[in-house]
Order: sequence, then structure tokens, then C-alpha cells
Amino acid sequence: MTACNAYEELEKRFKRLLILRETSAMLQWDASTMMPLSASSSTSRGEQLATLNRLCHEILTHPEIKDLLYEAKNQDELSRWQLANLREMEHMWKHGNSIPGELVEALSKASMNCESKWRSTRADSDYNSVKPFLQEVLDLVRESASIKSSVFNCPPYEALLDEHSPGLRQNIIDPIFSEIETFIPDFLSSVLEKQAKEPPPMNLNGPFHIKKQEALGRVLMENIGFDFNQGRLDTSLHPFSGGTPEDLRITTRYNTEDFTTGLMGILHETGHALYEKNLPKKWRYQPVGQARGMDIHESQSLLIEMQVCRSREFLAFAVPFMKKILTKEGPEWSADNLYRISTIVKPGLIRVDADEVTYPAHVILRYNIEKALISGDIKLDDLPQAWNHWLSKLIGLVAPDHKNGCMQDIHWFDGAWGYFPSYTFGSILAAQLFQAAKESDSQIASNISKGNFAPLLKWLEKHIHSKGSFFETSDLIEKATGKSLGIQDFKRHLENRYLNINASG
Amino acid sequence: MTACNAYEELEKRFKRLLILRETSAMLQWDASTMMPLSASSSTSRGEQLATLNRLCHEILTHPEIKDLLYEAKNQDELSRWQLANLREMEHMWKHGNSIPGELVEALSKASMNCESKWRSTRADSDYNSVKPFLQEVLDLVRESASIKSSVFNCPPYEALLDEHSPGLRQNIIDPIFSEIETFIPDFLSSVLEKQAKEPPPMNLNGPFHIKKQEALGRVLMENIGFDFNQGRLDTSLHPFSGGTPEDLRITTRYNTEDFTTGLMGILHETGHALYEKNLPKKWRYQPVGQARGMDIHESQSLLIEMQVCRSREFLAFAVPFMKKILTKEGPEWSADNLYRISTIVKPGLIRVDADEVTYPAHVILRYNIEKALISGDIKLDDLPQAWNHWLSKLIGLVAPDHKNGCMQDIHWFDGAWGYFPSYTFGSILAAQLFQAAKESDSQIASNISKGNFAPLLKWLEKHIHSKGSFFETSDLIEKATGKSLGIQDFKRHLENRYLNINASG
Repeated sequence: MTACNAYEELEKRFKRLLILRETSAMLQWDASTMMPLSASSSTSRGEQLATLNRLCHEILTHPEIKDLLYEAKNQDELSRWQLANLREMEHMWKHGNSIPGELVEALSKASMNCESKWRSTRADSDYNSVKPFLQEVLDLVRESASIKSSVFNCPPYEALLDEHSPGLRQNIIDPIFSEIETFIPDFLSSVLEKQAKEPPPMNLNGPFHIKKQEALGRVLMENIGFDFNQGRLDTSLHPFSGGTPEDLRITTRYNTEDFTTGLMGILHETGHALYEKNLPKKWRYQPVGQARGMDIHESQSLLIEMQVCRSREFLAFAVPFMKKILTKEGPEWSADNLYRISTIVKPGLIRVDADEVTYPAHVILRYNIEKALISGDIKLDDLPQAWNHWLSKLIGLVAPDHKNGCMQDIHWFDGAWGYFPSYTFGSILAAQLFQAAKESDSQIASNISKGNFAPLLKWLEKHIHSKGSFFETSDLIEKATGKSLGIQDFKRHLENRYLNINASG
Repeated sequence: MTACNAYEELEKRFKRLLILRETSAMLQWDASTMMPLSASSSTSRGEQLATLNRLCHEILTHPEIKDLLYEAKNQDELSRWQLANLREMEHMWKHGNSIPGELVEALSKASMNCESKWRSTRADSDYNSVKPFLQEVLDLVRESASIKSSVFNCPPYEALLDEHSPGLRQNIIDPIFSEIETFIPDFLSSVLEKQAKEPPPMNLNGPFHIKKQEALGRVLMENIGFDFNQGRLDTSLHPFSGGTPEDLRITTRYNTEDFTTGLMGILHETGHALYEKNLPKKWRYQPVGQARGMDIHESQSLLIEMQVCRSREFLAFAVPFMKKILTKEGPEWSADNLYRISTIVKPGLIRVDADEVTYPAHVILRYNIEKALISGDIKLDDLPQAWNHWLSKLIGLVAPDHKNGCMQDIHWFDGAWGYFPSYTFGSILAAQLFQAAKESDSQIASNISKGNFAPLLKWLEKHIHSKGSFFETSDLIEKATGKSLGIQDFKRHLENRYLNINASG
């Protein structure tokens, strides 16, 4: 069908596709950081992104791709990396090719409309007004999931999970979430009891000038390994990590009364950025050279933010910078007090404000609900009630209104169904990876307290970053940590940190 | 050949092409303003831009376009705007389709290499080292010009002119340049004699903080009609105007010892931006809705910068802002002194530093030389000598080295041959348009002195901006000004301003 080598032809087409995705990522970064007000509400950026999207879809759904994949699979000379690349190409193709262009566009349009309606109704907790928009999104997501379900031979909800975190299945999630559900309630009581007995940490009094917060963030980023010659730090409504491996663009938002939220945003996104930076250069524009799903991506950001930057070791290193750059003094600026502030546990209504201990419960709640909505077991009319059912069961609270309940997150309104589990798999994996790294190099923790992050990053680069999408997720985890994904290390980490079982925090 | 209407199919394809060009423009803006150091020297942005370029070229050279154009021309129901759109489509198609993809890529690569070599050799005036690179560019430009020469049935050099300013031909340029060559020498002597007799203007002493310069620029931009809800002002190495009509992105560079260069850069680019902003919305993504060539574009920037912002009226309005925002006081901050500073005439070696009177001579010099290089009448070995021949003849100077001579401008090294005449046609046309506007509304000048730019902009929008590419350039000028392009108004403007023949400046 084509004179040249089928595999090479595929490499050419997927390279173009991935470059177009990068242009799209740059334009999305721009829209969130630089774009003036009226321009964001004009159709101009939307037209640009939609056109790039359509081009990507056309490349992926070109009728020749199917035959090229078939031919390439029979090319005996392919290396293991090339075979893995082929596997990733086919995976992308199956996702892209299974859904008709009209459905893709309808879903993208419905999501945009619903997201915008959500923005204007959330403050008033006006669930009834946004419900018809959400219904449209849900209907289209279910349609798409049902098509993919037969392509991937899995339940519809798993096809959605697979879009964000390839290979994540209910039979992986269910036992882990059930273990967490069993573990958390008693553990949480113990932690709350312990913290209630201790005097509260001393307050860090602001205001904290944004310029100073930014300067502090930049110094810590550089120390961890971010190079400002190949990246930027900017401000946006919600922190994110974008750009390309040579041009990393992370963002945060600042609160002048509490510098820790902005700083933790920066450190979290730095974890994402370092993963992107260290992906295998040789496979830069090929599917196998891309990051391995959102669960692995979250593990990298949470490893830096939660495992490293909320540890005693890191805070011992960072506090002198905080005092100097924020120009603050006093007994409350001890590493110990900072550590106590960074590890307060307090059950609350809002996922993004949740601590490490209660966060998984917020995710499990969403997982249970979205699964039931996709399967049709519950309807959107039942959503607020289901929310409070799980919230009370898992966290012991009841949402007083929808903005603090089922309208708090953008995901469902924006069409991102099946995404939430990635967060908790990221947390669990971050603990398992950090533990494996420390076991392989016992100096990692003490090096962090000296501001030397190189040994940790070397380990991460070797075992995770440089692998790109070469391994499937379960293999990647096993090869890096010597065992399959489990919550033992996460539990041990929580026990160490929150109940002081063991010396290291 | 296609079931649906040929004209509609063409609209669809050209819309996609123009949207891709916009994404490319946004990424170029980003590369000049935001991109970190190492990222600019990596291949990542280059790959993105090259891919977008190739996609545009593929759309334009798709074999079906030819038949679609043929079919559409026979569609009797087309309106005059649609017919003009078809004419513009065919013009773009002829330019794009005539050159093989390999030649396009070879030229773009050679230009990139040569430009980068030029950057590293210019400071040392090392013409011999850059010459082989320039030779490669010139060879490829000549090859391309020769192909287009038969497509457009014109001399090769005219095909290059036509890429930048459609319809600009040697038989338009030659008589006008010859008139200027006749007019300038005596006029220049008179101006220099007059200025020598007067005491020099008083110096404006810096330093001028960049933040203050920027604040001044923003206030004046807003007064003229720039809306920061749909645009930005940033800093780059060379000022430019980019973005889209809904999202205008202009840049300047600042000198802390002389605020006028940064400010005039801002005002110039504001002129470009207002043109883009007021292009016909209905034809937003069609060729007929685009700006009419670089000569018309330069007329809009030069009308604002030269005709308006260096006038007594504008300065009377602007000086209070300057004093207040730059926090300066003293007799040197009079509108009269500012006017005298803005209209100093001094023959020099550098085009971009040239005053309004000697600027055309710099362009004529380059026009004569590039024409001879394209025709083969002279070789690159002869370039430095030819430079000094024309420089001495037209401006009475000799370049002491290449960096102040034939290596000063980026254009030839970057592959932009046939561009220079647009600058002087812009100047001439700016004078003619401003004169016509003032004749049609005698309050325009006095309104400017009150900071009311709306009447002028209304006239420009009606006669130029809103026309997009509906008219060919010569028709556009005639309809707007009642006559064909000539230098009478430009001469009169220079005489008024520099010899005070007539009251208005």
C-alpha cells in the first residue's frame, strides 16, 4: 500500500500528530497565562485549538493507519522499543479511531458549554440550572464509553479510565480502594486524637508579598533541579504543568495570607515538569517517548510535593530560604513548626484542600459515583443525594450546599470522567517509589536535608522518567520497585508521618 | 469532483489554512517574548513551526484546489466579495503551488542557517564568513523567483515583490523612486541648512525607568484606541505586531537613556494592530478578509507613528502625560521642544535610525542592489562596493565597515528579498491617506490635539481597514484618496514639517 517501510511511515505520521499536540499545549498555556480578557471569550483561540484537534483526529483516523499497523506488526527487524512504540500507536489509534468525528466534536462542544454554565452557576449552588448541560455531557460520554467498551473489550467505565491512565482497571482499583476504606477510618481517628492532644502549630503571619513568594518558589525549584533556561513559572487560576520537555511551563496561584498553598502548587508542578524533562530524548516525538498516563504523572508530582517537600528533611533545608526570602523571623519559623503545619489533618468538604490522609476518601466517593452514573445505576437527579451518602460514610460530613458538594470540581462538567482515580493511584505509587528509591540509596533522605536532590532524581530518571511509555504501567511499577502496586508503603508512610511510628517522617 | 459547492469547499480549506497560520503567529510571538533561552536554541519550536508550515503548504498544493478554483469561477451566484475572495485564493495558490515543497524547505533551512551565521558575524563585520551562507539563500531565492516569474508572467524580482505587497511592480516603483531621488537632495540641503541655523533642541535627560516608559506607552495606546482587553504590550529584541484581530500582541524594546525610541516603536506597532483589529469580521478567516499586503500595513503603522505621533498636535496632547508618567519637569518638556526632537534630520548610515527625510534613500539603495543581485547583474562579491556606491550617491556617506553597511539589516540573510520597497510605499501612502482624511474631515487634526482619535480611526476603518483585501491595492488607494499613488502629499508633508511651508506640522 505504501512503497516505504510501514513502521517508518507510522513514525512519520505519529511524529506530526505529537508535534501538533505540542502546539496545542503551548496555545493552552498561553490561554491560561497570557491571553487578554476579551480574547479568551472570543472564538479565536477556540477555533485554533479545534482545528489542531481535528487535524490530530484526521491523522489518527486516516484509513491507511489500520493497514500500516497490520503490516508493521509483521516487520521482523523491529527492536523492543519499536515494538513498544507500535503497541502505543495502536492504543492511541484504537481510542481515536473508535469514536466518530461528530461525536468527538459534539462532546467537546457540550463540555465547553457545560463548563461555562458550571462557572456561572457554582457560586449559587444552582445544580438544577447546570443539570441539563451536565446531562448532555454525560449522555455523550456514555455513548463514547459504550463504543470503546466493545473496542477494548471492557466495561464502558474502564474505557474511560484507560483514556487517562492506560491499563487502569476496576479489578486493580477495587481491592486497593477497599483496603483504603478499611484502613482510613481507624487510622484517621488515631491521627485526630493524637493531634488534638498536641498544642496547635503556631501561625505563620502574612502578608506574604507575591513577588517574594515567587522568588522563594523559584529558588526551591532550581535547587530541586528545574532549569529556568528551559522553562518558566507563571500565574494562572489553577496551577498546571504544560509546555514541552525543552520548554517547561508551570504555573501556580498565590494567596497573600498563606504562602504555603502557592509554594506547594509550585513544588507539585515541578514534579510533573521534571518527569517531562527527563523523558527519553531519542523517542521525543513518538508515542513510546511520552509520559506513561496520568497515574504515573501524578505519582511524580506527588512524590515531590507530598513525599519530599512535606518531609522533615526538606523543611530543614527549605526553612532558611523561607525566612530569608519572605523576610520573616520568629519561633514559628522553625522546621518543626513548618512540618506540623504541613501535616495537619482535618476532614473537610473540599477535595483540593484535603490533607494526605482524607484525600483518598474524596477520590473514592467520586469513583463510586461516576461509575454508577456511567453504568446507569444512578441518574443525575440522584447525584446530590449520592454525594452526601458517600461523604457522610467516608468522611463523616454532609455538604451544606452544592458548591461545597457535587459542584466543587470541574472534571465532570468538563467531560473528564474516569480521571479521579489517577490522583489516589498517584499518591499510593509516590509512596511506593519513594520507599524503593530510599531502599536503593540510603543517603537519599539525608541528601535532601542538605538540598541535594540529585540522587533522588537520578533514581527517578533511571527507573521512571527515561522509560517513557516503554513498559506498560504494571511492569513499570514492578521493575522500578520490585513489587506490584500496593498500599503497604503508602500506609507505612502515613503511619510514620502522622503517628510517628518510626523515626523518619 | 466534489459533491458540494466548489466555492464553499474552498472557503472551508482556506479557513483551515488561515487558522493554522494564526497558530503559527501566536507561537512566533511566544518565541520572541516568552520562550526561555535554551528552548529557543532547541529544535522544539522549530519543529512546531515547520510542521504548521508544511500543513499549510499541503492544503494549498492539494491537487483538487486547481479544479475547485476552476469550478468556482463558473459559479454565477457568487457575490462581489466572494469573487474577490476567489481572486485572493487563486493568488495565494499561485504563490504556494508554484514552488515545490523541497525548495520551500531548502529555502527555509538556508535562511535559518544564514540568519544565525549573520547574527554571529555581524558584530565583527565578517562579510566573508557569512557570504557562502548568503549565496545559498540567494541561489534558492533566485530559483524560486524564476519559477514564479513564469507563473505570474513578470520579471523574477517582481514575483518577489508580489509576495510581500501584491500588485507592486517595477513600473510603479521606478517612477516614484526616481521622483524621490530628484526631490530629496535639494530638499535635504534646505532642511539641514535650516536646522543648522536654529539652536539645537534641548536634551531630555534620563534615566527613564522601563516601568514608567511602559506605563506611558500603555496610556497613549489606549487613548489612540488600543483595548488591553483584546491585546498585550510586551518586550522583544525587535518591535513587532503579532497575534490575531481579537488578541493583538505588540512589542517594543526600551532604552533607559532615550524613551522616544521605545515609545515610537509602540506607536508604530499600534498602527499595525489597529488595522488588524478593524479588518472585516465577516471575512475573518478568508483570504479576502486579510490585510492588503505589507505596503498597506506599513502605511497604517507609519500614519500613526510619523504623520500623527510626530505632529505638533499629537505632542501637545501627549507631553502632559510624558511629564506626569515619566515624572519629569523643566523647559525641555515643552511640546515645541519635543516636536523639534521628533523631527531632527541627520543623514546617517543606519536605516532603522533614519529620519523621515533620509529614510527613502536607504530603501532606494537596497532596492537597486537587490534588483541587481536577483537579475544577476551583480554578484555577492560586488555587494559591499555597490553598497557604498549608492550610499555615497544617495546619502553622501561611506560605510566604514560592513556592520554599518551591507550587514546591518536582517532581511536578505533571512530570505526576505523584495520587502524593502514596502517601507517607502508605506511612508508615501501614509502621507496621502492622512491628507485625504484631513480633507474629508477638517476637524481631524484639532481632534488629535485634544486626544480624540476617533474621527481619524473612523475614516481609516471605513476606507482601509474594513476593506480587507476586497480591492486590489491600486483600487484601494484610489477609492480612499480619490487619486492614484503619488508622492505629492508626501512631499507636501515633508515641506510643511521640515521647512515650515504652511502652518500645520
